[in-house]
Amino acid sequence: MGQYENVLQLLMEALQSNQSATEVKEVPKTTSARTEDTFDIPVGVSNRHIHLSKADLYSLFGDWYQLKKTKDLSQPGQYACNETVTICGPKGAIEKVRILGPLRDQTQVEILEGDTFKLGIATQPRMSGQLKGSPGITIIGSKGSVQLTEGLIIAQRHIHMTPADSERLGVRDKQIVSIEFNGPRGGILNNVAIRANATSALECHIDTEEANAMGAKSSTKVKIIK
Amino acid sequence: MGQYENVLQLLMEALQSNQSATEVKEVPKTTSARTEDTFDIPVGVSNRHIHLSKADLYSLFGDWYQLKKTKDLSQPGQYACNETVTICGPKGAIEKVRILGPLRDQTQVEILEGDTFKLGIATQPRMSGQLKGSPGITIIGSKGSVQLTEGLIIAQRHIHMTPADSERLGVRDKQIVSIEFNGPRGGILNNVAIRANATSALECHIDTEEANAMGAKSSTKVKIIK
Repeated sequence: MGQYENVLQLLMEALQSNQSATEVKEVPKTTSARTEDTFDIPVGVSNRHIHLSKADLYSLFGDWYQLKKTKDLSQPGQYACNETVTICGPKGAIEKVRILGPLRDQTQVEILEGDTFKLGIATQPRMSGQLKGSPGITIIGSKGSVQLTEGLIIAQRHIHMTPADSERLGVRDKQIVSIEFNGPRGGILNNVAIRANATSALECHIDTEEANAMGAKSSTKVKIIK
Repeated sequence: MGQYENVLQLLMEALQSNQSATEVKEVPKTTSARTEDTFDIPVGVSNRHIHLSKADLYSLFGDWYQLKKTKDLSQPGQYACNETVTICGPKGAIEKVRILGPLRDQTQVEILEGDTFKLGIATQPRMSGQLKGSPGITIIGSKGSVQLTEGLIIAQRHIHMTPADSERLGVRDKQIVSIEFNGPRGGILNNVAIRANATSALECHIDTEEANAMGAKSSTKVKIIK
């Protein structure tokens, strides 16, 4: 009898842990209880954009040029600028690529997978800042152009959060998780990197192709699956 | 004792059915055994395109115009044509939209979610042919233009197959399943419609945004999850 009870206990534990991964559709879409099972991670959708170094900014727009902020972004200290650039590869150019501030140590161009065909340059999903070995690209501004030798990436999908968020959500900085989307175009995206630090706001960053494939808008909330 | 065995039996059945939905990552990526657990459904990636009625073809390219086939597609009898059209909405136009043959009873324009912003016309994922209530759009050809009152859709992701395939895969025509993608941008897309009929070839049709979000190419194989 004791033997059966042990087996039962093990089975019920296994069953519960499996159910928590599959019971997704039964979870209410909005709830005030902030637990792991709720869809409570806000989504931020990024189109192609560029972060500039000071040297490249001056080459593109002239010495001592100051970028004009047009909008604060959800991540503290980050903002969209009025200025855009054109990026050019061997097969084509893409105009009106938005500059995001503030300036960084190294210029980084974040494009969509679909852009790699227009430009004729292949690149892979990478975490921001991990540019070693990434391809270069030509950037054109109002006063000049820059030929990057590296810095062209597709942004790996990731979730910004504070250390307090990561503790509450039971994840750690640099952990790879999956995220689940509700709705008629819903599903799961794997390989989403956790980026936990004190200067972040809780937000899951995906690009426009990922958002469109999952039917997600900036009002969408997603759920972490570990 | 009999009571415990019944409970055990129920728990084990529930556990097995849950495991079949979650055991995905343990499945080998390639195998010659064609079972439900293998990634053996070839992917076909569709960019935006248009199917024309005969009346609209004549309005766009002139009376008695014959489309020029350039390439057979994987679905028997379907082909890409040399001709393209421009499609126009209140916010913008998209050029070089490929015509696919043969002609159909009603013109159908299949676009990407991202195109809805360029055009300034919202539309939803729908199954091919289910055009009632869908928005219209203006189409421009070499000899004239057509103002559709309906026919603009985003193609709902779907899997073409023969009845023999559907039997082997344990699915039925019109069933909604999910599909799983391997790889660094892998994940799961829900709400994929099964389309089983005798004139189909086994192929999972997704659009370029879905393919890019999942890191899929036309050589990619996916797995059905029920």
